[in-house]
Amino acid sequence: MSTPDDLFGPDNLPYGLFTTADDPGHRRVGVRYGARVLDAGAAAAAHGSPHAELLRQPSLNPLMAAGRHVWQAVRGALRSWLTDEAHREATERHLIPLDEVTLHLPFEVADYVDFYASEHHATNVGRIFRPDGDALTPNWKHLPIGYHGRAGTVVVSGTPVVRPQGQRKPPSEPLPLFGPSQRLDIEAEVGFVVGTPSAQGTAVGLPDFRDHVFGVTLLNDWSARDLQAWEYVPLGPFLGKSFATSVSPWITPLEALDAARVAPPSRDFPLLPYLDDSADGIAPGGLDLRITVRLNGHTIAEPPFSAMYWTAAQQLAHMTVNGASLRTGDLYGSGTVSGPEHSQRGCLLELTWGGREPLVLPDGKRAFLEDGDEVSLSAWAPGPGDTRIGLGDVTGRVAPPR
Amino acid sequence: MSTPDDLFGPDNLPYGLFTTADDPGHRRVGVRYGARVLDAGAAAAAHGSPHAELLRQPSLNPLMAAGRHVWQAVRGALRSWLTDEAHREATERHLIPLDEVTLHLPFEVADYVDFYASEHHATNVGRIFRPDGDALTPNWKHLPIGYHGRAGTVVVSGTPVVRPQGQRKPPSEPLPLFGPSQRLDIEAEVGFVVGTPSAQGTAVGLPDFRDHVFGVTLLNDWSARDLQAWEYVPLGPFLGKSFATSVSPWITPLEALDAARVAPPSRDFPLLPYLDDSADGIAPGGLDLRITVRLNGHTIAEPPFSAMYWTAAQQLAHMTVNGASLRTGDLYGSGTVSGPEHSQRGCLLELTWGGREPLVLPDGKRAFLEDGDEVSLSAWAPGPGDTRIGLGDVTGRVAPPR
Repeated sequence: MSTPDDLFGPDNLPYGLFTTADDPGHRRVGVRYGARVLDAGAAAAAHGSPHAELLRQPSLNPLMAAGRHVWQAVRGALRSWLTDEAHREATERHLIPLDEVTLHLPFEVADYVDFYASEHHATNVGRIFRPDGDALTPNWKHLPIGYHGRAGTVVVSGTPVVRPQGQRKPPSEPLPLFGPSQRLDIEAEVGFVVGTPSAQGTAVGLPDFRDHVFGVTLLNDWSARDLQAWEYVPLGPFLGKSFATSVSPWITPLEALDAARVAPPSRDFPLLPYLDDSADGIAPGGLDLRITVRLNGHTIAEPPFSAMYWTAAQQLAHMTVNGASLRTGDLYGSGTVSGPEHSQRGCLLELTWGGREPLVLPDGKRAFLEDGDEVSLSAWAPGPGDTRIGLGDVTGRVAPPR
Repeated sequence: MSTPDDLFGPDNLPYGLFTTADDPGHRRVGVRYGARVLDAGAAAAAHGSPHAELLRQPSLNPLMAAGRHVWQAVRGALRSWLTDEAHREATERHLIPLDEVTLHLPFEVADYVDFYASEHHATNVGRIFRPDGDALTPNWKHLPIGYHGRAGTVVVSGTPVVRPQGQRKPPSEPLPLFGPSQRLDIEAEVGFVVGTPSAQGTAVGLPDFRDHVFGVTLLNDWSARDLQAWEYVPLGPFLGKSFATSVSPWITPLEALDAARVAPPSRDFPLLPYLDDSADGIAPGGLDLRITVRLNGHTIAEPPFSAMYWTAAQQLAHMTVNGASLRTGDLYGSGTVSGPEHSQRGCLLELTWGGREPLVLPDGKRAFLEDGDEVSLSAWAPGPGDTRIGLGDVTGRVAPPR
């Protein structure tokens, strides 16, 4: 078991947004360091940093919009303030214990896109939802399939998730029924947060990924499978997803994951040039992130992000190849992370095979989520040397419909 | 042919956002009156209005967020300033000729949702895209099918639309091809703009429609049919739509369309209570809006909005029934408006039956759009007495890929 000091050391330094009880209206940019939060704006002012104004904004968006050179400069400065002997004392007074702060949604979400990039997940879901057809659609290995979700219902970890109501149509019924979802599920995903915008009518190529993506967060794409199954043909998921998407309060800078970069799985088909990450000069786009999914405290899955067929860089290139612009705050989810093993499946739909094989937990069986259930995602990646880089947890408890 | 004075008289008063050449950085709320624009903030200040501050913001969003009572009060005041003998002279100096202003995207788009609510359109598209299956999916008459689109690429009328590039796979090819879309299309739609937000976890019922929806705009949902056909199974349209969506610079208040309210078509199936607009106390949700679609100046279709199977109130109720919240600036499109006649089809896909029956125009044949083509949507609705209420035109010209 890693401690906060192990997971949130000087090589991590994720960003968040916090308030304190004595100044609840004043949102401040924070940087997690072990079990404490650095008031980044106050520290920057104390150290006479040229970036103090940027770090004193009530949102991460201005820093995210400032571009990669500024991200690198600010990260270097933060590390120096926290670890250099000459700076540590002046920094210390701006470190606040985690349990004394309230964490908020760290950035304003512009557009939210959700992908479907795990071959294991897509194969399993295809078999469950479309047992008479091919598990993967013909396009699946040629492009990273994605769709837009609802940006306005992205919430920070800890926000209760009200069980959605809606239409469902069991095969036995002649007409759809209305009521609370009976098949509420989670999807363990990794979210990528765009910093630098791009112009409408231009594409962002694979090599430009790191100029545009600011950082990484864990993401739970709550899903009402019964609503989704009835609505999703022909235009895709809508109400089965739009009620809530939870993200971690911490955005880990992409640079903190440099030691975790791995090659993606080998491709079954040659890729079109804009997606071809085997070309010279394209760095490996996979990430060795190890995710743990807990339900009421019990580990139910350990999905490996390194098994994803499509990388975040390919997703960004695809998302913009038609000229769609990026805005600061755009968020895109990887899609459910599932590995080849049963214990590596990132949602209950797969873990229980459509509900037919319930999980047996110490506090009872679960096919899908019950009111009061709490789901938590955590993850870490290899850092420099023997270190680990933790992503912030994302947790949510199911509340009954109002 | 109606004149601007007929279409934008004192019963219309749509809102927009403008700048003038002598103060290009200063965005101001404008109200269209005939062929002129009222500087609403300046007029409000001149008349000592309590709403002057709200109307002097550089965006419509604050007024939209202020709620229905404020919308009604401001509308009443505007009408009085423009038409009452006692006020007209003081108002006159704040009216600027339309050709002296630049019009901007009138509000900041929060989430963008696109529906699929015309039975005629959905039937035609189903026959074209899925010739071997049922034209309508089994869910179509039980819920208004919709999906989220890209809010960040909604642009104001007049913005050039760069032809998107992407993957397409003609049936004759073993692998997908990459390049500029060969089947660029339009969709003539009506957009609804949300003013008053709602809380996550709660639903907005049919009777509350007018408390939340601020107004109406014309919308062109540009569509790359070849990209869409290859990508849309199983998660819906993505790059085939996300490159651009054009809206009119004018938002017509819902109240201006009161005289245009009509009963929707009769329903083939009983609706679940949250969608049942035949219940007592629910006002008719259809709107008698008559749309004209022009391609390079030639009328190619006249779709009747009154033929839509699902109403905007039903769409709002459906969109929130799962507890999804509304934000000020949420925009939702009706879906392509098509009537039962050939001349009433709201997109080229239908008008040319998948490109097989090109339109013959004075300047050549068109299956889909060519670079340089200009598409314009206009619409009017019956107003009080013999008057007409015009929606602002939405126009866009196709630019070649960069």
